[in-house]
Amino acid sequence: MSNGSIFVWETLGTAILILLGAGVVANVVLKNTLGNGGGWLLINFGWGFAVFAGASVAAPSGAHLNPAVTLGLAISDKVEWSKVPVYFAGELVGAFLGAVLAWAAYKAQFDTHDDLPNTRGIFCTGPTVPTVPWNLVTEIIGTFVLVIWILLSPGAKAAEGGVPQFGNSALGYAAVAFVVIGIGNSLGGPTGYAINPARDLGPRIAYAILPIRDKGSAEWGYSWIPVVGPLVGGALAALLYLALPV
Amino acid sequence: MSNGSIFVWETLGTAILILLGAGVVANVVLKNTLGNGGGWLLINFGWGFAVFAGASVAAPSGAHLNPAVTLGLAISDKVEWSKVPVYFAGELVGAFLGAVLAWAAYKAQFDTHDDLPNTRGIFCTGPTVPTVPWNLVTEIIGTFVLVIWILLSPGAKAAEGGVPQFGNSALGYAAVAFVVIGIGNSLGGPTGYAINPARDLGPRIAYAILPIRDKGSAEWGYSWIPVVGPLVGGALAALLYLALPV
Amino acid sequence: MSNGSIFVWETLGTAILILLGAGVVANVVLKNTLGNGGGWLLINFGWGFAVFAGASVAAPSGAHLNPAVTLGLAISDKVEWSKVPVYFAGELVGAFLGAVLAWAAYKAQFDTHDDLPNTRGIFCTGPTVPTVPWNLVTEIIGTFVLVIWILLSPGAKAAEGGVPQFGNSALGYAAVAFVVIGIGNSLGGPTGYAINPARDLGPRIAYAILPIRDKGSAEWGYSWIPVVGPLVGGALAALLYLALPV
Amino acid sequence: MSNGSIFVWETLGTAILILLGAGVVANVVLKNTLGNGGGWLLINFGWGFAVFAGASVAAPSGAHLNPAVTLGLAISDKVEWSKVPVYFAGELVGAFLGAVLAWAAYKAQFDTHDDLPNTRGIFCTGPTVPTVPWNLVTEIIGTFVLVIWILLSPGAKAAEGGVPQFGNSALGYAAVAFVVIGIGNSLGGPTGYAINPARDLGPRIAYAILPIRDKGSAEWGYSWIPVVGPLVGGALAALLYLALPV
Repeated sequence: MSNGSIFVWETLGTAILILLGAGVVANVVLKNTLGNGGGWLLINFGWGFAVFAGASVAAPSGAHLNPAVTLGLAISDKVEWSKVPVYFAGELVGAFLGAVLAWAAYKAQFDTHDDLPNTRGIFCTGPTVPTVPWNLVTEIIGTFVLVIWILLSPGAKAAEGGVPQFGNSALGYAAVAFVVIGIGNSLGGPTGYAINPARDLGPRIAYAILPIRDKGSAEWGYSWIPVVGPLVGGALAALLYLALPV
Repeated sequence: MSNGSIFVWETLGTAILILLGAGVVANVVLKNTLGNGGGWLLINFGWGFAVFAGASVAAPSGAHLNPAVTLGLAISDKVEWSKVPVYFAGELVGAFLGAVLAWAAYKAQFDTHDDLPNTRGIFCTGPTVPTVPWNLVTEIIGTFVLVIWILLSPGAKAAEGGVPQFGNSALGYAAVAFVVIGIGNSLGGPTGYAINPARDLGPRIAYAILPIRDKGSAEWGYSWIPVVGPLVGGALAALLYLALPV
Repeated sequence: MSNGSIFVWETLGTAILILLGAGVVANVVLKNTLGNGGGWLLINFGWGFAVFAGASVAAPSGAHLNPAVTLGLAISDKVEWSKVPVYFAGELVGAFLGAVLAWAAYKAQFDTHDDLPNTRGIFCTGPTVPTVPWNLVTEIIGTFVLVIWILLSPGAKAAEGGVPQFGNSALGYAAVAFVVIGIGNSLGGPTGYAINPARDLGPRIAYAILPIRDKGSAEWGYSWIPVVGPLVGGALAALLYLALPV
Repeated sequence: MSNGSIFVWETLGTAILILLGAGVVANVVLKNTLGNGGGWLLINFGWGFAVFAGASVAAPSGAHLNPAVTLGLAISDKVEWSKVPVYFAGELVGAFLGAVLAWAAYKAQFDTHDDLPNTRGIFCTGPTVPTVPWNLVTEIIGTFVLVIWILLSPGAKAAEGGVPQFGNSALGYAAVAFVVIGIGNSLGGPTGYAINPARDLGPRIAYAILPIRDKGSAEWGYSWIPVVGPLVGGALAALLYLALPV
């Protein structure tokens, strides 16, 4: 597949992922919405079905949508290293575009919200208890589960060449959605489960740029943790995979 | 397939979709029900499984159930333009009938509810913050996600001829239900996600006609937005689809 | 398949269905449980996965588990009329046994509950607004949706001979679970959705017999509605099925 | 398959199961999390998707992850008795490791929680009403449903040799997740549904060992019930299976 096609599919898929993912948080957090106060299970189902929709649309490029997945597949020799920057670029651009679309869908709610400094959480993650080592550990463990599952699970096993990793039915995409919902339910409590560098960085840039009334800081000081943690977790999963008697 | 059969299947499928969709809102909104106050996730699962049941029953005609889907498939050359009015008619008639059935199922609850002007929301959508351009944008974006997913997702890809678009197992129908739940979770907050002109217009007509005690206005002034927005969103998705390197 | 085998499988499947179905209501209603106050969505997922477990175990006999389904299949010429009483008997006996098992699983909770007259709702259904015609209408509509879906949906289409109607994978069983969750979400509000004569009558008999402390009346005056309503709804679905251009 | 491979896969799968399972309880119970107070449905979906992720990763060894399942398969002649201790060892070691990982992911939350004696429930189960016979009955019934379903359900039927019992797609793993969610929803109320000796014993040992601030007793007096009950339930299911006209 050409670099251009990889870029297009990863951009489109990640944009849908982040549009729906940021959207569900906006729906729960912002005041003038029908989902206000909807709770953690609603947020997790929102992100899970966001993965489902985005990943199935991006099937032609293997539906990575996540630099930690791309890195894990490269270390496992399932994606050429020369393609890695193309995947990274599509994922980051898509994540930025998706965040802008989510903002547009909730424009009237942003304009009428009355606790605007708290809107950063719609775009990017943050810890409930800030502590560098343990926030990193949480992101590493969560991403490890995602990537080892992608490498090992029947029906989702990453094929050589890396595309398409979830097969030609809706089943593999539902499966990865279930795993993401599971990680959110179970490991999302401390840091909001970035488990994807693009998912956090792209929308954080969008938050910094968009004309949101009375917005707060983008918290750049924390921003490296949801980038480094997931990349480490994805790499560790690939190393374990290579060591297993597969 | 004959025009008569298309009409029958689309009417039946859309009637089941709206019966269960309007039903879950009645269950949450009306006072004397077991689901009263059940929340946004209950409403979204209700609409999602409504799509699941209605779409799988309407498999023979391709299970459009939605003029925005029909329009997107026509623009993508997957449905003949001459069939479009037949689909539209079945979808609108089915939506009206489904709303009447939902009213019948909840007749005793309508009769004993004590805040009846608020019952319009059981039938049709409305914005939390009325603003023409942004309400339109929200409906356009939500429908765009639905139709681009139908056109691109493996296992749900619309076949030439348009029928059946979700295959011969329950899987494709579960998949479209997941996407609709996802759109509701994530993009339903501002306007209640019509994302389907028939879903809004048919029940709105039913609300205007049915003998509901102390009912309020049908809000015809807003009614064009959930018709025009979804049609624009479906058309944009088809245009993007034609431009992609599929 | 021999009458004895039909009886065994329908008894086993319906027992699991009612064990899990009555169990989830006990979990929500009784005081000393971890699920106390868990809400309508929990109850509906409980019944849905109860159908999933019970129906997949009873695959050899076609997994009716419901006299309204058996009647609809007989009218549609998919089950011999001579087998109908065998199915009915297995369904009723299984429903009774399942209710007894649910009571055993929650024995310590029944013994320590302090609002015991309300425990009837764990076993059988009741209307929020008692009114004979409309309670009947609600049960008829809900069961109609279930049976027309079983007769028409791809992957769940009832085969000639009636067995096994949901195929050899877990998919068909998940599908019928989704439809039952959907009916509960959307049409369960007024009467608690029996949509199955055995589901209501078997546990009602168990409630009348079991040594539950301070138990209330079994409300036999209402008991005919969740028997007659579902049978009428299943029959109407079968008649529509025969009239459709399938 | 070699004993070493069985041990590796069962350890890995059970570790992921308990990491996500203990994780969701930590998310709901601990104070400084995003899922605090998330409720019983969140916990059950958490455990269900934990089973989904763990079981699909452990496909090569048949994904038992549970001594009660291993025992039921051995009694049913689907696993050699000589392999049973290997499975048991992997399951127990994996459960211990998973609990340690869950503790690490929530380390900052354990350190800042202000009701620490209550943290035992994150690791192991306990009854709401302590009573030896009925707590045993509840665990026996819940495990019976799990194991009879694994032995009988199409698509999840345990093959001779015992591996892989859930097939080569994601479907069987989703199915067992649905059943576990169902058992949790419906039968988890009285005792917290161990339904798996390793799930309870491994994390209980971890709780006793880990340096958790102000931790309470590990309640060893109760610990035999979630071991014996599930083993009895699994054995009874296997005996019924052997008696059925399969």
